[in-house]
Amino acid sequence: MTKLKNDTLLRALMRQPTDYTPVWLMRQAGRYLPEYNQTRARAGSFLALCKNPDLATEVTLQPLARFPLDAAILFSDILTIPDAMGLGLYFADGEGPKFERPLREEWEIRDLAAPDPGVHLRYVMDAVSQIRKALDNRVPLIGFSGSPFTLACYMVEGCGGTDFRQVKSMLYRRPDLLHHILGINAQAVTAYLNAQIESGAQAVMIFDTWGGTLSHSAYQEFSLRYMSQILAGLKQDHSGVHVPSIVFTKGGGLWLESIADSGCNAVGLDWTADIGEARRRVGHKVALQGNLDPAVLFAGPETIAVEVEKILESYGAGPGHVFNLGHGISQFTPPESALALVEAVHAISWKFRKQ
Amino acid sequence: MTKLKNDTLLRALMRQPTDYTPVWLMRQAGRYLPEYNQTRARAGSFLALCKNPDLATEVTLQPLARFPLDAAILFSDILTIPDAMGLGLYFADGEGPKFERPLREEWEIRDLAAPDPGVHLRYVMDAVSQIRKALDNRVPLIGFSGSPFTLACYMVEGCGGTDFRQVKSMLYRRPDLLHHILGINAQAVTAYLNAQIESGAQAVMIFDTWGGTLSHSAYQEFSLRYMSQILAGLKQDHSGVHVPSIVFTKGGGLWLESIADSGCNAVGLDWTADIGEARRRVGHKVALQGNLDPAVLFAGPETIAVEVEKILESYGAGPGHVFNLGHGISQFTPPESALALVEAVHAISWKFRKQ
Repeated sequence: MTKLKNDTLLRALMRQPTDYTPVWLMRQAGRYLPEYNQTRARAGSFLALCKNPDLATEVTLQPLARFPLDAAILFSDILTIPDAMGLGLYFADGEGPKFERPLREEWEIRDLAAPDPGVHLRYVMDAVSQIRKALDNRVPLIGFSGSPFTLACYMVEGCGGTDFRQVKSMLYRRPDLLHHILGINAQAVTAYLNAQIESGAQAVMIFDTWGGTLSHSAYQEFSLRYMSQILAGLKQDHSGVHVPSIVFTKGGGLWLESIADSGCNAVGLDWTADIGEARRRVGHKVALQGNLDPAVLFAGPETIAVEVEKILESYGAGPGHVFNLGHGISQFTPPESALALVEAVHAISWKFRKQ
Repeated sequence: MTKLKNDTLLRALMRQPTDYTPVWLMRQAGRYLPEYNQTRARAGSFLALCKNPDLATEVTLQPLARFPLDAAILFSDILTIPDAMGLGLYFADGEGPKFERPLREEWEIRDLAAPDPGVHLRYVMDAVSQIRKALDNRVPLIGFSGSPFTLACYMVEGCGGTDFRQVKSMLYRRPDLLHHILGINAQAVTAYLNAQIESGAQAVMIFDTWGGTLSHSAYQEFSLRYMSQILAGLKQDHSGVHVPSIVFTKGGGLWLESIADSGCNAVGLDWTADIGEARRRVGHKVALQGNLDPAVLFAGPETIAVEVEKILESYGAGPGHVFNLGHGISQFTPPESALALVEAVHAISWKFRKQ
């Protein structure tokens, strides 16, 4: 296995010294890039793009051609697993993801089975292999999955971003059923991430987009517990190189101590947390990833640099910081703002890393 | 002034001993009650209902006829102030509040002025007086307003619940303009709450529904700072009785220390915070209000009692707790669940208050 030309991200995730703070952007391959929109138009739809390894490779590499990013992240959707379970993922025009057959009946839930990633999610593994080849060891490739609870939200509600009435009703009325779904999801995510690692993913991230909508005790029982199970079942290394893991619960800032105890190497932060305070709480255990408000990218380069420096200064000297947004980049972001962000992180972080 | 028959809420807000934990529900007069829907149909629209003091009085008292609640809260909308500023509040069918004339141009912002509550918001003051009369000192009446930042979100976006792209762009590109709006809003809210106190409100609450979408530093500068200004300008008492104040920032659990320093008597918590942990952090300064996930009310009475007891137990012995939901009650809540909640709080809390 050839050595990575830029392993800054992997070193930072393991809290090892780096010359500067590595940076990548959640949803860095996406609609704010005109070249992405062209490829997507060629594919015909978002889902067709996800399922075509050649085109997924193409869009994964697009932001790296524009910006000196320190990582690539697999272009895919967080809902590939329930789609492979047969729930019928689709995207209505201008709306978020939906399922044709959400889980409503007990027998549907009892019938659920974890898909074999080598068969039902072959297209994802093919994309991972092709992206690794195309990257040619320039930067590491991050694989990912949705968390068991986040997947369950979509599987039960049939869509996202709601009041979560169906899934929370199940949580409080039939916790046994929700635990059954979550157990299957945890098995499925473990197998899925391990297959991504086998195919070449050099770090993995679990996106817990909706865990932050739970109460503090329900979060422990219905989201974090299953992420811990996954982390305990992940391959620790591939070809002798450690594969670090990142857990990101949006809105999970109150629960950092327990997230840091989940077995992950790094914790993602949204922009509501002060990263310096978060480091004082859990920085002795895990690396931290984040946490600029994506809305800062609607401002000019001077403001972007000021806000970047605030975060770098709050984190302070010493290793263990991966710069990122606190959530996915907005489709309305001018690409030159993303460049200003990446350049500011690289230009400003040297002085903090050298201290 | 006649003495309140039940002043448990006011005592708890002042961290004075009470025999049991008082309870009320955010949005307790609302669409989950059939009698509310009947009155609303008679009014013709939500806004007509808000603007008719007789009908506002009627719906304010409806939940008290059903449940042994320890407070009434003025039935009104959080957007009465920008409506009185001339922005044209309306409600499209099945959607949230919108403004006909959101603030887009600098001259529109420079033209803003705080409305005179005695003139432009007379209907609110009339409702407060009538509700006080109808309550006949059974329980205290809570007055309220939206926070300056939350009002600004709607005023700039034209609606709520978005990605807040317009208002956050202004925050990072033209902070001077946003500060101008917030300064006017703070003046307006101060005058509005003081007029409610003059008209008979016995406690006041500031709803900061969207402050939790800000970064930790932007929250301090653009939301909390203006709420502190309001709190400093509020009448402390009326007819010799202290009027306690409550600040509720949804998603503000990471910032409790600074919220507790804002000058309020009590801090509202959403359900993501562990109330016992919140008490350890700020319970020596303020009372705490909360914090059951409204989704618990989709379960049966046994589960509701279990979840209520968890919160009471986490808060523990001693004064300073007002039981509430962590957000407004859902329109899909069975009214009997609200009754089960209120009865559980009253039945279970005696043992904790006596310790």
